[in-house]
Amino acid sequence: MTLPLTVPAPGLPARVRIHEVGPRDGLQNEKTLVPVAVKAEFIRRLADAGLTTIEATSFVRPEWVPQLADAEQLMPLIDDVRARLPVLVPNQRGLDRALALGAREIAVFASATEAFAKANLNRTVDEALAMFEPVVTAAREAGVTVRGYLSMCFGDPWEGPVPISQTVSVSRRLIDMGCDEVSLGDTIGVATPGHVQELLATLGEAGIPADRLAVHFHDTYGQALANTLAALQHGVTTVDASAGGLGGCPYAKSATGNLATEDLVWMLDGLGIETGVDIRRLTATSVWMARHLGRPSPSRTVRALSQKEM
Amino acid sequence: MTLPLTVPAPGLPARVRIHEVGPRDGLQNEKTLVPVAVKAEFIRRLADAGLTTIEATSFVRPEWVPQLADAEQLMPLIDDVRARLPVLVPNQRGLDRALALGAREIAVFASATEAFAKANLNRTVDEALAMFEPVVTAAREAGVTVRGYLSMCFGDPWEGPVPISQTVSVSRRLIDMGCDEVSLGDTIGVATPGHVQELLATLGEAGIPADRLAVHFHDTYGQALANTLAALQHGVTTVDASAGGLGGCPYAKSATGNLATEDLVWMLDGLGIETGVDIRRLTATSVWMARHLGRPSPSRTVRALSQKEM
Repeated sequence: MTLPLTVPAPGLPARVRIHEVGPRDGLQNEKTLVPVAVKAEFIRRLADAGLTTIEATSFVRPEWVPQLADAEQLMPLIDDVRARLPVLVPNQRGLDRALALGAREIAVFASATEAFAKANLNRTVDEALAMFEPVVTAAREAGVTVRGYLSMCFGDPWEGPVPISQTVSVSRRLIDMGCDEVSLGDTIGVATPGHVQELLATLGEAGIPADRLAVHFHDTYGQALANTLAALQHGVTTVDASAGGLGGCPYAKSATGNLATEDLVWMLDGLGIETGVDIRRLTATSVWMARHLGRPSPSRTVRALSQKEM
Repeated sequence: MTLPLTVPAPGLPARVRIHEVGPRDGLQNEKTLVPVAVKAEFIRRLADAGLTTIEATSFVRPEWVPQLADAEQLMPLIDDVRARLPVLVPNQRGLDRALALGAREIAVFASATEAFAKANLNRTVDEALAMFEPVVTAAREAGVTVRGYLSMCFGDPWEGPVPISQTVSVSRRLIDMGCDEVSLGDTIGVATPGHVQELLATLGEAGIPADRLAVHFHDTYGQALANTLAALQHGVTTVDASAGGLGGCPYAKSATGNLATEDLVWMLDGLGIETGVDIRRLTATSVWMARHLGRPSPSRTVRALSQKEM
């Protein structure tokens, strides 16, 4: 098997935790409805491939996200999986459902821009944060770890470039309300490496160190992995990615939304950064899921390895 | 139009020269035969988009590369294009043909590995260098600038990972025989950023500074842009790329071989690094060429911009 030669680079972390979002963020954006048994097997296979954090599903109202309406059925099927299995939760009702099913980690989702808060949550940024605050408090009282997703950290389809100060301000409020970690989302994929580093530096100055942050890049303009490298150089050690690049893209068939986990692992393997992930098993899993979805994986690494080796 | 916010990063060059390889390296690897008039218009449009170096064609034996067998017809059609127009030349006969048509820059192509030298040139590495040496000498005597392509600098499909010392040794010989520049090719796309930086550092120790080098990354495993960022951080200011990601990939339809010029320009624009390229005009050109080839561009930036704006 062709594997990259391992050559470490100075100034990078020894270990990265990959926050795998394929089963939730990935499948949520796929048109093909996936049976719950396939989702459970997908999560199991991801854990077997070495992923330690796998975002499993969402407890938003089923009619909002039909693809993930089976959360109640899914959770009992994966309760023995040996991985952290965070779930997305929008409100107290969602938290109650998640806790009843044994969730130990949740994620809430805020927006750095007013336009996207309005479009996605039908609220202002302030109203959305006010909605999440009691949920975060209740989750922490229940001993549950809380991640705050922050969308549109770099640019917004309605508002254009997003000022760094604005992203820092909302990040600060997520941390202050009790989020253990903030995942900085480049929802439309417009970020470039200087922007990433400037945002991380400014967050650091605002008292939010890299170990409270994750990065969540989209590959709409092909920038996700270069931006990830920039974030690693700035001390970030948690990186979101989606197995096989699941999640599609609104613009083109088989173009990618999320950074593909395999493309990320290839780079980290080459850099000698430990992830615990076996790229061969992960690729096999993405090929298997692509067959269920009826279309090839948009991950370049999955395509290259699967044509050659599998 | 969505454009990246410009946020420079420390330690990067102010300006990058893009060596556009679409008309030669790109089309050479496309199945659809492109009429010579379309090639000429392609080159003209690339120059109009601001590209200053456009590798135009190849003077290898026509039966070896049927796609570029029209070099004699092409050259007179582009002799007024205001850009550097290097051409590939394998031997004295090719150099004579190129000089007769007014070429002012040539490129020769060597291999860092014995296996690829054998496969591509049916020679050992030494024999290939011996073949090129008089060509380089004659070209320089004619006042022609010479680039040396070096393939398989990071890995080889037969030999696996390529020792850095081996790549440095052949690079040194290309410089010593008179090449003005060596383009370090990751022909199978296996490089990662630490490998890139270690190779560049070792080349520097061997007396070959970054300003005599170019990088030529393939996106087979999605690593090309991250590797380019690593090279820029190490002082490289000449980057090879292919408009629209032309050149395909042996493994999958519309997967990319070469780094797409648009994806590169997006990053450089975001970093505030000057290239002179107008990404809008370049994308329009790649969309136009994709129609001639009958398939969508594999460039993520081309896909995103063309679906939204054009």
